[in-house]
Formats: sequence, structure tokens, C-alpha cells
Amino acid sequence: MVAAPTTQVDSHVETLCINSIRFLAVDAINKSNSGHPGLPMGCAPMAFSLWDKVLRHNPKNPQWFNRDRFVLSAGHGCMLLYALLHLTGYDSVTLEDIKQFRQWGSRTPGHPETFETPGVEVTTGPLGQGISNAVGLAIAEAHLGAKFNKPDATIVDHYTYVLMGDGCNQEGVSSEAASLAGHLGLGKLIALYDDNHITIDGNTGVSFTEDVLKRYEAYGWHVQHVADGNTDVAAITRAIEAAKAVTDRPSLIKVTTTIGYGSPNKANTAGVHGAALGAEEAELTRQQLEWSYGAFEVPEPAYEHWRQAIQRGAAAEASWNESLAAYRSRYPAEAAEFERLLRGELPEGWDASLPVFTPEDKGLATRQHSYNALNAFGPGLPELIGGSADLTHSNLTDIKGEASFQKGHEANRYLHFGVREHAMAAVLNGIAYHNSGLIPYGGTFLVFAGYMIGAMRLSALSQLGVIYVLTHDSIGLGEDGPTHQPVETLANLRAIPNLLVIRPGDGNETMGAYKVAVTNRKRPTVLALSRQAMANQANSAAEKVALGGYVLQDCDGTPDLILIGTGTELDLCVKAAAQLSAEGKAVRVVSMPCVELFEEQDAAYRESVLPAAVRKRVVVEASSSFGWHKYTGFDGASVSIDSFGASAPGGVCLEKFGFTVDNVVATAKALG
Amino acid sequence: MVAAPTTQVDSHVETLCINSIRFLAVDAINKSNSGHPGLPMGCAPMAFSLWDKVLRHNPKNPQWFNRDRFVLSAGHGCMLLYALLHLTGYDSVTLEDIKQFRQWGSRTPGHPETFETPGVEVTTGPLGQGISNAVGLAIAEAHLGAKFNKPDATIVDHYTYVLMGDGCNQEGVSSEAASLAGHLGLGKLIALYDDNHITIDGNTGVSFTEDVLKRYEAYGWHVQHVADGNTDVAAITRAIEAAKAVTDRPSLIKVTTTIGYGSPNKANTAGVHGAALGAEEAELTRQQLEWSYGAFEVPEPAYEHWRQAIQRGAAAEASWNESLAAYRSRYPAEAAEFERLLRGELPEGWDASLPVFTPEDKGLATRQHSYNALNAFGPGLPELIGGSADLTHSNLTDIKGEASFQKGHEANRYLHFGVREHAMAAVLNGIAYHNSGLIPYGGTFLVFAGYMIGAMRLSALSQLGVIYVLTHDSIGLGEDGPTHQPVETLANLRAIPNLLVIRPGDGNETMGAYKVAVTNRKRPTVLALSRQAMANQANSAAEKVALGGYVLQDCDGTPDLILIGTGTELDLCVKAAAQLSAEGKAVRVVSMPCVELFEEQDAAYRESVLPAAVRKRVVVEASSSFGWHKYTGFDGASVSIDSFGASAPGGVCLEKFGFTVDNVVATAKALG
Repeated sequence: MVAAPTTQVDSHVETLCINSIRFLAVDAINKSNSGHPGLPMGCAPMAFSLWDKVLRHNPKNPQWFNRDRFVLSAGHGCMLLYALLHLTGYDSVTLEDIKQFRQWGSRTPGHPETFETPGVEVTTGPLGQGISNAVGLAIAEAHLGAKFNKPDATIVDHYTYVLMGDGCNQEGVSSEAASLAGHLGLGKLIALYDDNHITIDGNTGVSFTEDVLKRYEAYGWHVQHVADGNTDVAAITRAIEAAKAVTDRPSLIKVTTTIGYGSPNKANTAGVHGAALGAEEAELTRQQLEWSYGAFEVPEPAYEHWRQAIQRGAAAEASWNESLAAYRSRYPAEAAEFERLLRGELPEGWDASLPVFTPEDKGLATRQHSYNALNAFGPGLPELIGGSADLTHSNLTDIKGEASFQKGHEANRYLHFGVREHAMAAVLNGIAYHNSGLIPYGGTFLVFAGYMIGAMRLSALSQLGVIYVLTHDSIGLGEDGPTHQPVETLANLRAIPNLLVIRPGDGNETMGAYKVAVTNRKRPTVLALSRQAMANQANSAAEKVALGGYVLQDCDGTPDLILIGTGTELDLCVKAAAQLSAEGKAVRVVSMPCVELFEEQDAAYRESVLPAAVRKRVVVEASSSFGWHKYTGFDGASVSIDSFGASAPGGVCLEKFGFTVDNVVATAKALG
Repeated sequence: MVAAPTTQVDSHVETLCINSIRFLAVDAINKSNSGHPGLPMGCAPMAFSLWDKVLRHNPKNPQWFNRDRFVLSAGHGCMLLYALLHLTGYDSVTLEDIKQFRQWGSRTPGHPETFETPGVEVTTGPLGQGISNAVGLAIAEAHLGAKFNKPDATIVDHYTYVLMGDGCNQEGVSSEAASLAGHLGLGKLIALYDDNHITIDGNTGVSFTEDVLKRYEAYGWHVQHVADGNTDVAAITRAIEAAKAVTDRPSLIKVTTTIGYGSPNKANTAGVHGAALGAEEAELTRQQLEWSYGAFEVPEPAYEHWRQAIQRGAAAEASWNESLAAYRSRYPAEAAEFERLLRGELPEGWDASLPVFTPEDKGLATRQHSYNALNAFGPGLPELIGGSADLTHSNLTDIKGEASFQKGHEANRYLHFGVREHAMAAVLNGIAYHNSGLIPYGGTFLVFAGYMIGAMRLSALSQLGVIYVLTHDSIGLGEDGPTHQPVETLANLRAIPNLLVIRPGDGNETMGAYKVAVTNRKRPTVLALSRQAMANQANSAAEKVALGGYVLQDCDGTPDLILIGTGTELDLCVKAAAQLSAEGKAVRVVSMPCVELFEEQDAAYRESVLPAAVRKRVVVEASSSFGWHKYTGFDGASVSIDSFGASAPGGVCLEKFGFTVDNVVATAKALG
């Protein structure tokens, strides 16, 4: 561990630096007449302490691998982050960008978004996510460190810092993640808790009076309290340094502040949380803080001081580059592997060992095929890291011989998330945000997507290649009954932009689903997998999954009818087609494992699979019909379930709800 | 407070009673070859203690108002509950029912479901929900008690007991709810925590090593530990009595048990959590526990002892009936009001004060209309109880003059949930489960349905008339950007069975939306409300909302084109229709505030609104097109947003994404 360089400053410059944050926030929010000035004003001192005295980062290379990560979990306070990026010299946030705060096309949107602004590590705003993502960042760092660092050569070595507020601490997802982080002893995770006693509804006394530090202590965290976060920069810095020195536990530092500090009439009120100060109050704040500068004016001494970060950052990266060079010469194989990861390149032939299936092969549940896939390519894809939310032997997410990531065993790559679905998704996002080639995956039952969809939509929004292994994908799961049987969940997920939902119909399609999921590093994939077994199809093929939908089995000439199936219901379509064909109908069977990918194909291909002229179409999927009318129109039909399910053996459920060959045939015939 | 009657029993009968639970579970799960024997075997002693010595309930009247509520939060252990219901004499669970465990049409489904089995207070299974629902039950009890009890007459007075496991304690929703319960000081909420150290992935040591009692203490709970939950019934009973005596805080009793107690080879392993013991191990368990009875055989002394509950229950209810009669004579007005609530009758004319709007009235945001509605009918609808997840002044969920429900002020009916969306939904469910006429509502931003959809689907499944007030319902919310802008959320919610999603298009429709929501006591309603203002329409009417969709504005003869709009986009349709009409098109405008209700209308009505022959249709909604093809088919189109949004002023967002009159006109014309 090389200590981060620190700088002695005189307190006048410190004050200028801190107030520069405050007034950039005040001015930008006044100009846009929209935003959250309270947090930047209250947290400017701790931000100064962290960013000026502790944080190791390189403003001129926001992607430098070994930088400390900073997560603004209280994302509404984004003007704090934009001010920091600007003041420390990031090219991504100019003064002009700050003046465009919250405007169309700007790099300073209303909440921090990784895909808009280099230097933003994590997309935040929905409360509780950032701190949970940070747990994923810390896991990634610990894992790579344990894997690549040598007693004589350290190339992975950074902290993950978080700034969170009362809101983040009230959200259940952060409780789950903090409990997991405590269990795992993530010593390089340090959270600053902005204890300002104000949320939108007013004083936290109306709803949130728990002892937060005691709770984190119960999780196994190291906790500290800085009583005066408004002016005591030295105390904040000491607390951060003390937290860094505790390496076996994550740290929480409660920093008591005044929201909207400096505003004579609005400080310490909910009024300053989420609304512009207005011209008059901004002027009074200038007077109170003795700030004689104009709107968007940063005094030169502040710039000068802040921008020492550029030199420090360049030096830090240069020093790391030297370490890496030394590592490369001493450990060439490990270095090559490390650098492959950072380039995001998959190992050559990673998928070569995936099996191919014919109808003669025993039919298995797709969750079992998924297990076989993970165990076929997993050993040769060391960047794959993940686990399950306490359903390992149901989701079949384990890889033989891969041990559990635990405190002191961070090189292992199986993650026991506990019964914490929401945190699992957020942690997987965090691992992806680390942007170091790791491929995160996690399993639970499909229906429990409902517990984590808040984080899943962020996987999609932030273009994170997370793989969700969601088993027990229909009423076919049987006895557990309607609380566990998804009916609406596939529709829920398909409605999310930039998320691939793949429901493979046999062994080959499951292999293909993994090829798609592993190679899609800029969007998340949901694998919807069955509890129950199904046959392998004659014409399925792994590579066809990338097309989204394809003709599995055709008739001569133009079809009278097209049966469209997914997952376990594909075989029903094939059997119904046989019966209908025997009765003289020209029937095509289309397998549609991934609607989103099908829609990305060109019009000619889509027409070749689903000719516009053939309007008699039946979709068969043991799920809601919601969303399928796009393919069935007014003249088609679906064999679906638009109610909740019921508790009974899976085969009985499927039959009672109409998932039988006879009902598919009858539904098709009813179209005329 | 009348103490619950207790009974002295000799320990042999106690043992028979306890083992009756165990073997009913073992045998039923063996017969169905599916289920979770571990919990009933381990928790039988605490269940005996609670149900035999403490719980006040009347098996012959499961709906007796003043019964203690028992919530099996660890719902997978449902055979425990079915055994208890059977043994204590509920008619809903016969021995035959137990033999039909997890079979089609049985009253003993794989997880407890209120709508299948009288005596089941709460539908559980998805972990963490039950304990959170229990917080709602305790709020309901505290509220009604504070409102109706008199110094000389107590008619509302029961405890809410919960049995929860490690899984429930890991879920974030339970953390949120427990923090809220601690804040509110819900002294009559008592949770037994089955500390058995085993979850599906094995020992909790792999993921869950926090100090649970310390955490609850940090929330403000009273905590205790019973070290031997396997045999020390007296200690469990003492702990429950001690918890009852602590009236200013909720209580958690950690009871350390052995999962699958009695099974020589499977006890204390994950193997007994969720799989049948099998015939052989069941036999060995019989030997170990010296149980000489056959399958499904309950020894007579056990029945005799357990069924004293019937007499105790009848006496308890009779005594309460006397109290109620006395109350009725002393406080006739209050009694009438109390009994009205219990009958679930709305006050006559509750909606008489709802305003009516014409186009001349100022256009407001539907969230503002919602505020006006709540403030018009809320004062006259005292059973309305709710609040917001810390967005009161954004959701506009407050009712003037209604103060906050707080410790010591439980008669108040505004709930500050804090930034705890998931717990809010679960607590609202709990208030509805109390089944005492209360009408629960809660607000957050529409996009944060993603944080609580796990609980919302349970509102729908369990037929709970919760009202979700979800504002900021599209990209029209503007500057907060894509993390806060729902695009897929309406589709997510519409895909859930038995949930009404209403997106009103002006003032009259907002009033109508509340009429639907308040009168639908067996299904939840989502009100999707705008941040931004819109015009009032000439032909809108509150009562038309109940039709789901209706012709807002028609043309002469058969329309060439139908524009279908919802919410803020309804006015776009009207304006586009004007322009298209001026160009000679025959255009109908259909307002579709609630797709689900429209689909419940008869075919003739639906045909009258959307004639099958008119296939040129354009849906206009600032949301995903997902699901709308049911109405647009292959020949229609939609003006929708199928990507994420962006941060900019709302009007700019709407314009950039194509929500303009010009684009609606152009889209319509493109249909030919």
C-alpha cells in the first residue's frame, strides 16, 4: 500500500475550495431552476477532504484501472460530483457543461449517469443503489487483488468510497448489501454517511430514528462519527485515514452536517433539499459565506489548489505503470491474463466445449442445461464470477470445484449472496461497473425478479453486461404455488429497454443463450430457465439464438398457420404441428427464444420467419399473453396464462391451465 | 388488557402436542413428496407455546375481529400452520385437507394463501413480506385502538405475532419495515425469530453472520434470546409474556432451534429445509422421537389438549361481544362507526364532494387533481389511511389537517413511511389484511414501483384493495432524467393480474379513478399521475372511468381512424384529431384510462368503442408500446417511447421523444 499523497493547505484556500463546490452547485441549480443544492452545500467539506487529501485518481484518465472509486450514492446531489470533476480537472465537465446542468444533451444530467459523463463511476439517483453497487466494486477489487497481487508486486490496490445520505440508509437494498459487505469483511470499502437529519418529508424524526451506527456495527462494520462535518475538515480526514487503516472490515463514517449549509433562510430545512435557492437566497448565502465571486466564477487560488489533482494523478498512474511493467517482467503469464481482462477480451475458444444436442439426447430442464453450460465453459472463463441468492441447488449456478468468495478467500469466485435478491442485482451491477473484464452472474427464481427489478433496470440503463440466471420460469414449477409462479414476469422484463430476455427451448438453445449473454458486454441478459425437463429439438441450434427467432420446422409452401413457441412450450408446438400436419394443415413452427434480438434483425429476415401475409399465428408460452399481440395481431391467438397460477404438481398445473397439445391444436383450429 | 388464559399441562401431553405438529408435517410432505419439513419440525415447540399458551383466537370464527394475528413470515413452513389450524379445530383444515397438501384445488397449498384457507391471515412465501405485513397489521390495530378505545371500554386489543426465519431477516423489505416499526414503537408486535442457522445454501455462515438482535436493538426493538428452542417451552413462553409486557416497543425473540429436529440424519442440514424426509428417514425420526403412531395419526390426548382452544376461543369472543355491547350502549355513535368499518361499508355520499371540471377550468397536473380529490373526500372517509415514501410534497398525498401517525399519536392517519417503498407496499398490504374496513394508500414516483413490485403483486394475488398513488408518470417529469423516468413501468403493472392501472387524462377522470379505487376493495389500484399540467376535456366524465375506455370525441359515421390516448397524452389526441378532421379525416378519440376495466366490459360495448373493422388506430402514451399491440394490431401504430428517457425540462423531453401534435398527426397519416 502506497499512501495517497496529501497536501498541506492554508485554511483560506481550503475555504475557497469548499465554497467553490457550494456556489457551482447553487449557481447551476439556480440557472436550471431545478436540482438539489442542499447536499452539495452540506457535503462540500467532506468532499474536499476526500477528493483533495485522500482520493487517488487521475483526472486526465478517468479509466485508469487502479484509481480509487468514488460513488455518490445520494445521486440527487450530483452537482457536488460535477463540481468535483470540474474543479479537479476532468475534461468531461467544463464550466460550460455545468451551465448546461439538466439540459437536453448535456453531460450534466439530473442524476449522475456513467454513459453520459466520464468520471462518473456509477449511475445513481434511485436511493440505496450506489452503496450496494459499491459493495460490488469492492468485491471486484478484492477478487482481482487476491488473484493477481504477489507478495512482491501489487497491481490491484484501490479503495471504494461512497457518499450516502439518510435516504440510502433507509432503503432495504442498502441494508442487504451492507450486511453482505460486513460478512465478507470488505476492508477497502469506506462509506461517508451524510447525517443531515433532513429528507424530503422534513426532519428524519418523522420516520427514521434508528441508531444507524449501531446497526452497521451489528453488520460487522467499523464505525466512526464526525460531529462537525460543516467545518472540521481535519476530523473528517482523520476519520477517513482511520477507516483506511482498518483493513478487515468495511467502514462507515457518520458525518453530521447541515443541509444547505450557508443559506441563511433555508439551511437545515427540506426546502433546500430539492429546489433551487433562487436569486435572492443565493445572494444572501454569498453574503453569509463571504463569497464575493460572480455566478459560475471560481477564484483562481481554488482552481490552482484543486488542480494539483492533475499532477498527483499523473504521478500515481505513472507509478502504477511502473509497477505493472515490473509485474509484467516477473509474472508474464499473470500479466498477460490481467491485461486481457482489462481489454475485455474473452479467451479464445471459450465456448468450444459447449455440448451439442440431438433429439436422441435425454431431455433435461433448461436450468440443468444451464448448469452444464456453466460447468463446460466456466472453468475456462475465469472472469465469470457470481452465484445465487441462496438458491444454489435450485438455480444450479455453481461451478464444480469453484469455492466460495469469503473473507480471506477473495480469489474464489462463487458468491453466496444470501436471501438478498435486490442487493445481488446491485452488487452484480457494481462488479460490472468496475469495468475490469469480470462477467458477473447471479441466480434466483424468475418470480423474484420482482424483488430486484429496481436494480435490473439500472443494469439495462447503464449498459452493464450482467447475466441473470432466473430459474423456475413458469407455473410448471408446480407445488410452490402462485407466490412462486411467475406469470407476468417475462412481460415485466421484456418491457425494459436494452435488456435481453432469453427463454431457451432445449439444450442447444440454452448453449446459444449463454453465447449471447457472455458476448453481450454492454447489455444485461436474463436467462429464463425451466424447473422441468423438455425434449431436445431436431433443428435447434445454439447459433440461431442470436437471431432471436427462427424457423424450427417448416411446411411445404406458404404456411396456413404459424406456431410460435418459447422455452418449455416449444415442444408443445412441435407436437401440435405434427397433429395439425397430419390433418392436412401447412404448419410452421417458429422458436422465439429472444424477442428483443429478433426485433433487431432486418426486415427481410423477420419477414422470412413471420411473413406478414400469414396472420393465423398462435403463440404458446406458459406466461402472460401481455406483449405477444405484436406477433399475433387481431387474427391470431395465444395459449397463455393471464391469471395467477396455483399450487399443484407442475404437470397438473400446466394441464389445468391449458398447456397441452390438444389445447394448442384446438386454439389453432379455432382460428379457422 | 385482559391476559390471555393460560393452561397448565403435564409435559407428556405437551410432547404429544408438539410431535403432532412435526409428524403431520413429515407425513403430509412425504405424501406429496414436496414441501419444507425442516421448519415445522424445528419450530413446533415455539408454535405450541404461542398457540396453546398465549394466542387469543377463535377456531370456529377465524374472522373474529379482536383475535390475535399470527403471521407465518417463513411461509414455506406452511405445514406448521396447517397443522396448527387443524389441531386447534379450524374447520378449514381437516385431516383430509392435510393429506391433499400441495395438490390441485386443495385448501393446503404450497405456501399459505388467505384466499384459499380461512385462518391464514397473510399470504406468505416470498421472504420478508410477512414480517412487513405484520407491521401493517400492528399499525391497523394501534390506529383503531387509539381511535375507538375509551378509558372505560376497550374493544380493539390484540397482538400481532410473527414467526420469521433467517431468510426473512436477510431481505431488505424486512429491514425497512422493522426500522419503521421501531420508530413507531409498535408495542403489540412480537416476532419470533427461528434462529436455526440453516438456509438453502447451507449454514448461514456462508453469507449471514451479522448480529441480528443488535440490529433490531438499533431499530429500537426490545430483544430477547431463548437459547434452547427445541425443548424449553417454558422459556419460550416466558419470553413471549415478557415481550407482551413491553408495550412501548416491538419485540424480537430469537429462538435458537435445530432445523428438522428429530430427524437423525437430516436435522441441522439444508437437506431437511425443502425436501421430503422420505419413508425411511421418517421412520427413523419416529424412532428417535418415540412416536408410535401411524401416518396422519394424531393421538387422542393431543387432540383433546389442542382443542381446548375451541372453548377458550368461544369464551374470548363471547367476552369481547359483551364488551362491544357495553361499548355500544355507552358510545353509540362510535360503535356505529366501528361496526360500519367492520362491515366494510363506505359512508353514504363519500364521493359527493368530488368536483366536476369543464374545459374552462384551469388545467392541472393529475397529481394535483389527486390532491384535490383526497382533500375533497378524505375528510369524510375516515377509514382512508396512508401517506408517502418520503415524497409527500411531490406525490401530494397529504390531507389538510390530518396529522402524522406517530408513537403516542396512533389515532392520526398520515403515514410517513420514510424512503422505504418496498416496506410501504407491504405495510399497506398488512393494513388491508387486517380486514377492518381501513383503506390504505401510499405514494411514490411511478418508476419506484420497481422497488416494490414484489409486494404489489401480492396485493393483487391476495385481493387487497390497496391504492397506489404513483406520480411523475412519464418522461414528462423532466430534469430528474432516465433513472426517475418510467418507460416500462406501466407495462410492468398492467401485466400483473387483478391489478387496476388507471392513468387519468384530466380532472374528471382523476375523480373517477378515485371512485374506482375506493370502491374496489378486493383488488389494488395504481393511479398513474402526472407531474405536469394538462387541459380538462369537454366530454370526460368521472363515471366513465369505470368503463376503462370510452369515446371521448367522435366523428360522423364510421371513423377512418381512432386515436387512443391516456393521461397527459389524451389532449394530444384531441388536438391531433382537430387537425386531422380539418383535413377531412373522420377521427374518433378514445380515452383509455384503464385497460383492465375496458377488457371487463361486454363485447358489444368494446365493439362500440373500438369497432373491429376500424384497424387504423394510433395509441398515444408517453410510455413503452409494449402491450398496446392488442389494440393497434398489425395495421395500427403507436406514439410511444421504447428507449430510456433523458434529463431535460419535461416539455423538451416530450417534444424530443415525439410527443407532439405534429408527430401524432404524421403517425396517423402514415397509416394511409
